[in-house]
Amino acid sequence: MIEVGNVFGWLATKAAARERAGLRRLLRARDGAEAVLDLAGNDYLGLSRHPAVIEAAEAALRRWGAGSTGSRLVTGSTTAHAALEEEIADFCGAEAAVVLSSGYLANLAALTALATPNTRVVVDAYNHASLVDGARLARGSTVPFAHADVAAAEEALATNPSRRALVVTDSVFSVDGDLTDLGALAASCSRFGAALLVDDAHGLGVVGPGGQGAVAAAGLAGRPDVVVTATLSKALGGQGGVVLGSRTVVRHLVETARPFLFDTALAPASAAAALAALRVLRAEPGLAARVRLRSAELSRGLVAAGLPASTPAGAVVSVRAPGPRAAAAWAERCREAGVAVGCFRPPSAPDGGSRLRLGARADLTPEDVRRAVAAVRAAALDVPEG
Amino acid sequence: MIEVGNVFGWLATKAAARERAGLRRLLRARDGAEAVLDLAGNDYLGLSRHPAVIEAAEAALRRWGAGSTGSRLVTGSTTAHAALEEEIADFCGAEAAVVLSSGYLANLAALTALATPNTRVVVDAYNHASLVDGARLARGSTVPFAHADVAAAEEALATNPSRRALVVTDSVFSVDGDLTDLGALAASCSRFGAALLVDDAHGLGVVGPGGQGAVAAAGLAGRPDVVVTATLSKALGGQGGVVLGSRTVVRHLVETARPFLFDTALAPASAAAALAALRVLRAEPGLAARVRLRSAELSRGLVAAGLPASTPAGAVVSVRAPGPRAAAAWAERCREAGVAVGCFRPPSAPDGGSRLRLGARADLTPEDVRRAVAAVRAAALDVPEG
Repeated sequence: MIEVGNVFGWLATKAAARERAGLRRLLRARDGAEAVLDLAGNDYLGLSRHPAVIEAAEAALRRWGAGSTGSRLVTGSTTAHAALEEEIADFCGAEAAVVLSSGYLANLAALTALATPNTRVVVDAYNHASLVDGARLARGSTVPFAHADVAAAEEALATNPSRRALVVTDSVFSVDGDLTDLGALAASCSRFGAALLVDDAHGLGVVGPGGQGAVAAAGLAGRPDVVVTATLSKALGGQGGVVLGSRTVVRHLVETARPFLFDTALAPASAAAALAALRVLRAEPGLAARVRLRSAELSRGLVAAGLPASTPAGAVVSVRAPGPRAAAAWAERCREAGVAVGCFRPPSAPDGGSRLRLGARADLTPEDVRRAVAAVRAAALDVPEG
Repeated sequence: MIEVGNVFGWLATKAAARERAGLRRLLRARDGAEAVLDLAGNDYLGLSRHPAVIEAAEAALRRWGAGSTGSRLVTGSTTAHAALEEEIADFCGAEAAVVLSSGYLANLAALTALATPNTRVVVDAYNHASLVDGARLARGSTVPFAHADVAAAEEALATNPSRRALVVTDSVFSVDGDLTDLGALAASCSRFGAALLVDDAHGLGVVGPGGQGAVAAAGLAGRPDVVVTATLSKALGGQGGVVLGSRTVVRHLVETARPFLFDTALAPASAAAALAALRVLRAEPGLAARVRLRSAELSRGLVAAGLPASTPAGAVVSVRAPGPRAAAAWAERCREAGVAVGCFRPPSAPDGGSRLRLGARADLTPEDVRRAVAAVRAAALDVPEG
């Protein structure tokens, strides 16, 4: 018999094993006045602190209060949510949009609502955790394909015994920042009557004309067989998620998707902030190109310093580390040098490898880029082993 | 071959079927200046619009910006999150707490992190959708028991072939407002070395001394084998979710729970708002008793009017309707009379029945209660059939 005090004893064993493997994880609370150069976050356009964004959020707080008070279909929908849905659909070239309280739930909602027991769900092996969990939660059968391998995806469609198929992929992958070939995937989908679901979380605001996203850049915006998810918490600097698609798809999600029906709506202030950020992006269409310029400079600088840096399609550049301990030590050295970078170790790295992850921002100066490269280089020289 | 334009053709068929079944759902956007008596929302204590809450959210917006900029382990943790975790754990009598961006994700995180392939997950048949989805997503085997039937739950523990067991239940059930017997469930768990996971979303701030929740009311606060989830979006008037438990359990979630690791952190303003609301609740411990008084008055008034109203354990009172069409028509009549009530139809009602759902608020006047009862009574008399 397990004693009351020992019911969770197995958790301590697991914790010790993680510690031995160099996988200890600690929360570090920011006080808002850090003097570090931040390349760890996803506020790619710096809009999180834009005065128009803060002002819009404050006005929404005073108008509706701190919370939405209920799920979207009960009391949680405000005119801020409705305006955001209309404008973000227009910006991305979609017929309609529906906002959720997080990108995670947007992916769970899209997958569970659009995959039935008769659907083969064909997934890139490096998809974001929320797409992986969405596929697990959905009623269809899941078939993974090798990362970015369109031929393998098409093979999974060609051998599909189910009535329907849904191909699911990130556009810009979150850890290494590479962009999959959406045009080729969509062509494969068309050949087999499959639908395509693209998570454009790291594309929106960064990729495509004026930051309209990777789906628009691939000429797929507005296609009735393409559904797009995105977050409001990266380039748009706020919180929340969105699903974009035809009016039929969006209505289906609104009426049937459990992570939409049974979740308290996004706070009105967060909806208003995202809308204000979107309007800044529309007014300054050069922001997206600027962040891509900075990430390209970062990547070139890291490669010139002899480091194995990825070639960015969006804002994200990764640098491979020999192991989880080295990655953690490199990140710590960078922080001591005043540069915050992301540290991705299993299970956060899709291939089991560890790396640093640097997110460029539109407001980085050339000097910021030089400092970041120098910090990573010094850390890697100092701690060469995994 | 399915044409590109017809890949989602099946969604239109589904929509037509829902329409025929009286299950059409429409979003209604609030503009913030509605002149209705709101009994549809979950802002049970009216804290969503409390000046101290708004002020705290505004200060956080100015300090950290609109978004948290990353996941909790990267850049998303602020001193607002840390302070909220410390104070809410203290308030609920738990060793530790971890805040997530929604209650939905808090439940997914708790279930996926605490159930292994060797765990039998024993679930109340009326559990909230997020607990149902969490159990589906978790790696264990799920065994449902009849709603609130402790003997049935114990039977599932007694016949458990797996190494571990986790019993999962709401405290106050969200649709009918009834409270399960947590003490008896915990005793069953102890007999079989099982852990107990309680979703206290509708208990926190409403049930127990000063609103410490149903787990504290049952004398289970701080037990090492009990884990509690709750939302920041109901009695606390904001957005977000929380998992409360021992330090071991909370550390396990922070280091391994995918819906925590891979989700952008709650916006700092929402964390600050919830903390301010919690402090109001601590300063005014009579708030919880007041909302229970109002819900009891509502229930008595509805029963006296001949309506099949539930007996509330917390803020929620439900009124059974003959069918989904009647429920929708009743809610619409109430709204025309200036009273907003919730309308729950399948799949939002656990037993397939339809009902109105009224959430009491601490700031309702006796006249508000009379108006609400009169509106529901008139609607039910006017539209008697399903």
